Amino acid sequence: MHDVTHSHAGARDRLERQLAFLVEADRLKGVLRQTTLCDRSRAENSAEHSWHLALVALVLAEHAPDVDGARVLRMLLVHDLVEIDAGDAFAYDASANVGKEERERAAAARIYGLLPEDQAEELRELWDEFEAGETRAARVAVAIDRLQPLLLNHHSGGGSWKAHGVGRAAVMRRMAPIEAALPSLWPTVLDVVERNCALGHIAP
Amino acid sequence: MHDVTHSHAGARDRLERQLAFLVEADRLKGVLRQTTLCDRSRAENSAEHSWHLALVALVLAEHAPDVDGARVLRMLLVHDLVEIDAGDAFAYDASANVGKEERERAAAARIYGLLPEDQAEELRELWDEFEAGETRAARVAVAIDRLQPLLLNHHSGGGSWKAHGVGRAAVMRRMAPIEAALPSLWPTVLDVVERNCALGHIAP
Repeated sequence: MHDVTHSHAGARDRLERQLAFLVEADRLKGVLRQTTLCDRSRAENSAEHSWHLALVALVLAEHAPDVDGARVLRMLLVHDLVEIDAGDAFAYDASANVGKEERERAAAARIYGLLPEDQAEELRELWDEFEAGETRAARVAVAIDRLQPLLLNHHSGGGSWKAHGVGRAAVMRRMAPIEAALPSLWPTVLDVVERNCALGHIAP
Repeated sequence: MHDVTHSHAGARDRLERQLAFLVEADRLKGVLRQTTLCDRSRAENSAEHSWHLALVALVLAEHAPDVDGARVLRMLLVHDLVEIDAGDAFAYDASANVGKEERERAAAARIYGLLPEDQAEELRELWDEFEAGETRAARVAVAIDRLQPLLLNHHSGGGSWKAHGVGRAAVMRRMAPIEAALPSLWPTVLDVVERNCALGHIAP
């Protein structure tokens, strides 16, 4: 715990920076993804997507019993904030992903930088860990970030796969991290992919 | 940790229930609140609201250093799910809150009941704890649920206060739980209320 009471002015400034960050975060609700809600009424935004991922992490935690679930949760809650500046690049669109890394690094510096320095560093580390995808916690978080759009696409009748003519090989590459990170989910993932191929929601 | 591997069929059924719950949760994105986003573009929905609350809990955790932050997070992530069936009752509308408790209890039974029994009970307990508002963790979660709309109303030029002509006394009653649960936030809350009274966003 940091000393937040060493001076009244310091504590006030610290709180103001925390609140400025939280108000800026509101803008993530305006970043639209390619995935639609299950009822197809509209595109999902990145804020509600982040909530849904956190709920998936909470409910499926037992499928990764070796992992610090609280860290996975924290990672999922903050990992999309960079999209406020950088936008959401559709995973299956290679051209949209050109320069993505650089845009997101600049966004991370600005957005996490609104926080007091120690917290900026802490949240930036969570984001770096997610992006690197090397720790077990990050691998589980990434797998959840792949699983949730699969569920939405499946329940919205093909969703972004169908809208963009995404093929089986591309879907399988995208889903691959789930096999190692959440092996007990993998048979279900394969089953959903096969069913959507059969339905013509995923191109051959 | 529960034994989820005692039989293949049992594990498969358990996972199916978890996924059915997670797909049903998608509907929370369609439940609209009276609060608008800071840019006033539209009403906030309860899913992105839940994400925002979790982010507030994460960033302001040091203001309640005695509390289990992970439990507050979990409580905030699941506390609004009942609104899928019961809708969001505007806090300042007494008539909308008639029968709310009964509607929400039925909703909790159905929605948490989609999960495997042990998880249904666990999430139901989190919701009961939030609703009762008796533990320190619940008091902090409730305070965060009051603080976030204050920030949005303030930054959207009066938001739901102005739209519904909400008065100072009603706002102060609504904000009161923050004083004891997050005392270091209280001067800021008072300041925001006074400024919005002065601006005519909150009625005298």
